[in-house]
Amino acid sequence: MTPSATPAYRRLSVEERRSQLLEAALKLFAHRAPEDVSLDDVAEAAGVSRPLVYRYFPGGKQQLYEAALRSAAEELQHCFDEPRQGPLLSRLSRALDRYLSFVDEHDTGFSALLQGGSVVETSRTTAIVDGVRRAAAEHIYRHLGVADPGARLRMTVRTWITAVEAASLIWLDEDKQPPVEELRDWLVEQFVAVLTVTASRDPQTAAVIGALAEDGRD
Amino acid sequence: MTPSATPAYRRLSVEERRSQLLEAALKLFAHRAPEDVSLDDVAEAAGVSRPLVYRYFPGGKQQLYEAALRSAAEELQHCFDEPRQGPLLSRLSRALDRYLSFVDEHDTGFSALLQGGSVVETSRTTAIVDGVRRAAAEHIYRHLGVADPGARLRMTVRTWITAVEAASLIWLDEDKQPPVEELRDWLVEQFVAVLTVTASRDPQTAAVIGALAEDGRD
Repeated sequence: MTPSATPAYRRLSVEERRSQLLEAALKLFAHRAPEDVSLDDVAEAAGVSRPLVYRYFPGGKQQLYEAALRSAAEELQHCFDEPRQGPLLSRLSRALDRYLSFVDEHDTGFSALLQGGSVVETSRTTAIVDGVRRAAAEHIYRHLGVADPGARLRMTVRTWITAVEAASLIWLDEDKQPPVEELRDWLVEQFVAVLTVTASRDPQTAAVIGALAEDGRD
Repeated sequence: MTPSATPAYRRLSVEERRSQLLEAALKLFAHRAPEDVSLDDVAEAAGVSRPLVYRYFPGGKQQLYEAALRSAAEELQHCFDEPRQGPLLSRLSRALDRYLSFVDEHDTGFSALLQGGSVVETSRTTAIVDGVRRAAAEHIYRHLGVADPGARLRMTVRTWITAVEAASLIWLDEDKQPPVEELRDWLVEQFVAVLTVTASRDPQTAAVIGALAEDGRD
């Protein structure tokens, strides 16, 4: 092939090449189980040679998977970015919309990652996932205006976050039924319902529920 | 050692020996992370030689762990056995009492198993855990008198089961606070609350909530 046949070709920087490989890997891992993705597939999808993939990820598939997962985790954490203005439940609703779009776009990878027993699961991948859960909880406390959440509020929020994950997995398993808007509204209502249960035993959570009710009246 | 020094000694049958080794293993796996249990520890706890452990479990620790897990899963499923009589929420409450005792007794093993990323986690261990979750859901449908649960009721029940698991892990993580009776009552109330949310969109769940309300009036 003569240079004129590939006029757009230019040498990528190390960072650009790395990003390009990660992006190709993430797309593959999004829709296939990790065991069904080979480095050959990644090389082919990125239009590069297999040795080049190994040069960037000498640890092979495991290293590539973890790097792709870290990049997905960052993307997922951006879903939670939401200005602290407007009714609280509308903010939650918008964050859930973004989260559920992410789940929709990374369906197979999301299931493989969270359903456990995957060949690429390690204490490091678990730590990355736990980091996302912790970030989600912190965002919620911040929006609720709670600086120092007590044990009962923490348990309620963390349990609800797990319920969101579980519902997302079931939703994927049920061919994405019910419609995503219904799922989102159901999750928001569950949030209020579980906080309300806790509120009867915990003054801090009762204050949060009070604020949510005020909020609805604005 | 002369025979008279061990008068109680008798040769165990294959099944008895297997049970004895499993029981010793389960006790060790209950309170230590799987990576901190060696076959030597199991041999020592059971008072037998390491080669004997290998004779029964030639697949080594992984095989022993899976066998111990299967035995724990059976024990856990017995927690759900509850006669179909008396108020529904009292039955749920009793089943949760047994479940939470199990969690209390197998604390470290329960966390290691469910928190993911464990060295002994495989698609087989995941399948065993999923079997327990499915059994729990089936028990609930039966008690609710629902022969053919629809997608919305299924999602609600399965999500609640995951929430119970998550709450149990958080409870262990928080040094078993709040008191177990409060946790149990909170989980029962959560069950009613999440079903109530679903009931507004799903006639089948609305009927279940109606029956629970009737029940409370008996």
